[in-house]
Amino acid sequence: MPPSRWRCLINGEARADVDSRDRGLSYGDGLFETIAVRSGRPCCWLDHLDRLALGAARLRLPLPSPARLKAEAARLVEGVEVGTLKMIITRGPSARGYRLPAQPQPTRILFVDERLDDQGHAMTDPSRDPRTEQGVQVRLCDTRLGLNPQLAGLKHLNRLEQVLARAEWADPGIDEGLMLDAEGALVCGTMSNLILITDVGLETPLIDRCGVAGTARAQLLRIAVASGYQVRERRLGLDDLLRAQGALLTNALVGIWPIRSFEGQEVDLSGLPWPLIEQVQTRLMQPESDW
Amino acid sequence: MPPSRWRCLINGEARADVDSRDRGLSYGDGLFETIAVRSGRPCCWLDHLDRLALGAARLRLPLPSPARLKAEAARLVEGVEVGTLKMIITRGPSARGYRLPAQPQPTRILFVDERLDDQGHAMTDPSRDPRTEQGVQVRLCDTRLGLNPQLAGLKHLNRLEQVLARAEWADPGIDEGLMLDAEGALVCGTMSNLILITDVGLETPLIDRCGVAGTARAQLLRIAVASGYQVRERRLGLDDLLRAQGALLTNALVGIWPIRSFEGQEVDLSGLPWPLIEQVQTRLMQPESDW
Repeated sequence: MPPSRWRCLINGEARADVDSRDRGLSYGDGLFETIAVRSGRPCCWLDHLDRLALGAARLRLPLPSPARLKAEAARLVEGVEVGTLKMIITRGPSARGYRLPAQPQPTRILFVDERLDDQGHAMTDPSRDPRTEQGVQVRLCDTRLGLNPQLAGLKHLNRLEQVLARAEWADPGIDEGLMLDAEGALVCGTMSNLILITDVGLETPLIDRCGVAGTARAQLLRIAVASGYQVRERRLGLDDLLRAQGALLTNALVGIWPIRSFEGQEVDLSGLPWPLIEQVQTRLMQPESDW
Repeated sequence: MPPSRWRCLINGEARADVDSRDRGLSYGDGLFETIAVRSGRPCCWLDHLDRLALGAARLRLPLPSPARLKAEAARLVEGVEVGTLKMIITRGPSARGYRLPAQPQPTRILFVDERLDDQGHAMTDPSRDPRTEQGVQVRLCDTRLGLNPQLAGLKHLNRLEQVLARAEWADPGIDEGLMLDAEGALVCGTMSNLILITDVGLETPLIDRCGVAGTARAQLLRIAVASGYQVRERRLGLDDLLRAQGALLTNALVGIWPIRSFEGQEVDLSGLPWPLIEQVQTRLMQPESDW
């Protein structure tokens, strides 16, 4: 764990505690976003806000205004060269029981983790993760994703499946685990989306029954289409992965990780669309100029 | 909402706030129990502790000792004539990321809601819920339960499916909604288990792929077996409900509710095993004498 400096705002106040009756804690009744910060600004801010709005509509969760979120995020990310901004929006405190409160008072929790160097100084070199070039080692998880179309795609606070999947390995050489759904379809990593390079072009699992629709995945697909790649979202299986020319993992905090081995089998990295990867990686880690 | 008096202990301290980095909030990484309190004591305390222990083993969550939970619960329930004790155990605070912390410091949140009369005095008449005799009106929810055998049965903190299901109706005349799983099997209510009275005896859905294995359900089945009823857990469908002689809902806080109408169709209550219901209801609301 690299050293870091942590600061938090709860409903705009510099605090770190939340009411124990908050429905985020009681039921996971809320949403979150984790956002890369570079040079004092968030990356892909609007993509994260869009996903938050989609989730809020689906969960009937009243969101704070974008202007308010931006103002509070700006207070936290100012001066942060390299870091992570996390925003959690819950339905707020309520009496016991699943029923929605008549007058919900959503809780907004924003915090920033600033990466420091070994001397405890702010990092000023936002150099990229070496794994973007070297690739990562990946395993297959036993933990499956339950099917729930109503929640599919959202970055909600019910993440026990990911916790259990991530708990399956301790080997620090393994960077990610892929997950199947209850019916055996290949969906994503515990904290990333999966894109295959195939004869068709780019193929990626549908996120219509489970999984999170990642903002980095969306950026990659958008840039790929603009660059003339064929892009297809469909139901994929493990056999599709094994037949693919290569595979990429996407995550808003690390960008793109090519898979260099899966379950101990080496994967050839030479068939990957390196110029596309380079372009998307740069876009994902680019501080938002106008947000 | 009847008036109530609320008191909370967090890790044994009289506080009401939780660290915003708690994994209970970040990921729903924890378990809970809601326990009826009568005459200054919890009801079915050991059943709740047993389920907590089962969940903790499944989630690899280190639990506080039963003696510690009991000591803190005792501080809260003392003098409470009629109320509810809620215990939440989370994996505690951690750095960002799904990975389990190497040295988890679980958080225990215990609170009691004491029911007061309209004058704000403690209720001294723990009279039973009239719905146990009159029955309740029930609807069918559109929200489905995703299948996840690893989490099935546990009372964990990932409860968005129940929140969405409960949000489907506002009519105060409807007391509960039944839920199907992703494959259409009938599983439970949003906050209760379902038991059908059939030619076989008592039949109840298997809780092996989703749903919570309720402590009240377990008590009912145990007492029914001891009383000579045939009891069968199996995969059930809506057709089984429609063919049944009657149906019961169980919940640790209210005990037993017979279903008196389903989706607007009246259900005959005369075929119900009233002596069994009476016996179980009494057992469920009996303050634990030795706990």
